Amino acid sequence: MGNERKEVLENRIKKLQLDLAAQNFEAVLISSVAHIAYLTGYGNFSKEERDAYLFITQKEAFILTHSIYTEVIKSQVKHLTLVEISRREPVRKILVNLLKKSLSPRKVGRNTRLGIEEDHLTVAEYRALQKEFRNIDNFDMSLSRIVKNNLEIENIRKACHLGDEAFLHVIKKIKPGIAELELVFELENYIRKSRADISFKTIVAFGKNSAYPHHQAGLTKFENTPGQIILMDFGVKLNSYCSDMTRTVFFGKPSTKQEKLYETVLEAQKKAVDFINSKIKSGKAIKCAEVDKIARGFITQKGYPSIPHSLGHGIGLEVHEHPTLSPKSKDYLQEGMVFSIEPGIYIPNFGGVRIEDLFVYESNGLIQTTKSSKNLTVI
Amino acid sequence: MGNERKEVLENRIKKLQLDLAAQNFEAVLISSVAHIAYLTGYGNFSKEERDAYLFITQKEAFILTHSIYTEVIKSQVKHLTLVEISRREPVRKILVNLLKKSLSPRKVGRNTRLGIEEDHLTVAEYRALQKEFRNIDNFDMSLSRIVKNNLEIENIRKACHLGDEAFLHVIKKIKPGIAELELVFELENYIRKSRADISFKTIVAFGKNSAYPHHQAGLTKFENTPGQIILMDFGVKLNSYCSDMTRTVFFGKPSTKQEKLYETVLEAQKKAVDFINSKIKSGKAIKCAEVDKIARGFITQKGYPSIPHSLGHGIGLEVHEHPTLSPKSKDYLQEGMVFSIEPGIYIPNFGGVRIEDLFVYESNGLIQTTKSSKNLTVI
Repeated sequence: MGNERKEVLENRIKKLQLDLAAQNFEAVLISSVAHIAYLTGYGNFSKEERDAYLFITQKEAFILTHSIYTEVIKSQVKHLTLVEISRREPVRKILVNLLKKSLSPRKVGRNTRLGIEEDHLTVAEYRALQKEFRNIDNFDMSLSRIVKNNLEIENIRKACHLGDEAFLHVIKKIKPGIAELELVFELENYIRKSRADISFKTIVAFGKNSAYPHHQAGLTKFENTPGQIILMDFGVKLNSYCSDMTRTVFFGKPSTKQEKLYETVLEAQKKAVDFINSKIKSGKAIKCAEVDKIARGFITQKGYPSIPHSLGHGIGLEVHEHPTLSPKSKDYLQEGMVFSIEPGIYIPNFGGVRIEDLFVYESNGLIQTTKSSKNLTVI
Repeated sequence: MGNERKEVLENRIKKLQLDLAAQNFEAVLISSVAHIAYLTGYGNFSKEERDAYLFITQKEAFILTHSIYTEVIKSQVKHLTLVEISRREPVRKILVNLLKKSLSPRKVGRNTRLGIEEDHLTVAEYRALQKEFRNIDNFDMSLSRIVKNNLEIENIRKACHLGDEAFLHVIKKIKPGIAELELVFELENYIRKSRADISFKTIVAFGKNSAYPHHQAGLTKFENTPGQIILMDFGVKLNSYCSDMTRTVFFGKPSTKQEKLYETVLEAQKKAVDFINSKIKSGKAIKCAEVDKIARGFITQKGYPSIPHSLGHGIGLEVHEHPTLSPKSKDYLQEGMVFSIEPGIYIPNFGGVRIEDLFVYESNGLIQTTKSSKNLTVI
């Protein structure tokens, strides 16, 4: 297992080095924490401070980090060469020296083509690099993680499973008088007690608050009136991999209008799933934008407002990755992708319903990894 | 109180606009979440995604954010003009239009001098701005929050108080068999239950692990052997303001060597505090680098290794701010500053001791806001 993991990681580096050569980059400086996790298997660097970089030349692979990480990186990341960084020597100087050692020195100069991740590097870091490199360009890795291997899928499955458990736990806690933030605490606490983390800020919306798709949970208390909507959108992060799910439940018998809303959203999700499955069976290419259109069209055709967000998104080391299931997406679905399908209808001053599950594209069709019931639930 | 708060916030914007004029910037684009919180009073934007910018011209102040924040910003941030951003119109175009409306149009062109925060803007955002602005420079706000007002100090005090309570709670939980991560959970859970958040990743280090100043808590279990060291470094975030404290305690009677370590660290902190107080009394300027030297020198003079980190740091909306108490710091202490003093001694394969408290510089001397006992504690 250890060897298999090492081989997977080494192959990712090799693949990246082939991409570098193909795109005429001498080297790339990787700074996004998710890409570092993908290439090293180590996912505990901070997202708020710059703890580490990877520096991948066409021939070698280095991990640059502070001395406080030396021990853990030595023991957990053996397929990259560790280089300690400190305030004594600027990173740009270290990079030049590594390049000279890694490639033939005459190939290294101010015109050396260096890749950066322009969405994950600050202007200050960029300006420092410009002192040594004239030829800096964006190196796009955003599609590299789009297809997941079995181990990645297994990790996402486990995160989903814990999400299902957390949901079962939290619905027992919904009762009049409880505040949105208290339910958030219950959900997140359940996840953390299980030695996992949350993958994004939990959304809990009561009543009319559910009409805002990204409502920020607050002090709104749960009222003792029937037909109240409770929308919960949350995720688990386990072994660095994320889950994401949304359920909308009702307190007391929902009104006909609410019931209709719920059924329409559920049916929209089903339409999207059926569409993908039929395409898989017939072996045809599946454009993400078309999937989005199926669910979106069904909702608007029923007279409801269009979904004010994408129908879905890929998930993995980050909670939002490619593929993107949206009207303007250029992505196509492929075997091994994992993504959410999450239609929603939101009616101002009334409330909203969203249902979100994760799906794995397997050779015979979609497998839903979120297992919580989607029957209209009255608590 | 509401009016007083509004006045404080408005004055911060006015002060910033004077700085813009003095430094010949037509406008500045603020992107750091802490600076946005400082200038708006709203501290709930994500640090992982770009939820908002402030755009402050010499004459006006705008907050640019997504529609999901519209409601909360309308109700909580009344002294800035709200501008919604979406994918339809690039931010750079919005900025140009706002500038033209805000300043006389003939003043706005490709040579308009635009300030950015180069540590808080990505290369991709910068390159987009360059399509409209040729004259982009760093606008340094890092010193603007260095002196705190009474309300800020009160918030830090409250965060410290909750930290003290969390510490009292957690020392009761230390017993043989418990893992570092379980104590982390106990600490963080206590804080979150109290409707606060943690201000950084909690450090809990058992035994020899305490020799790493930034040890990452793991599965190491607490052993049933006397003289074991437990080092805990953690912080609370309450009303957007941070606390930070470290305590080192012993399980069973410490060895003479351990006791000596503890006393030296405690004395080093006291020396630094006494030094500052004597300077305050005599009305002399206090160079942060000199304060660092007092504590550091005391420790090395006793034959121990030098402190492998700064002696201390300012704290407020962020857990690390100016002033910096380090050998190379250029900061001076002033009334209204709040900072940590945290000497430590770390001996590989043996263990480490660090003691950290927050202090407020008041007119008559330092006031310690962390109240937990520093007597050598045996549990």
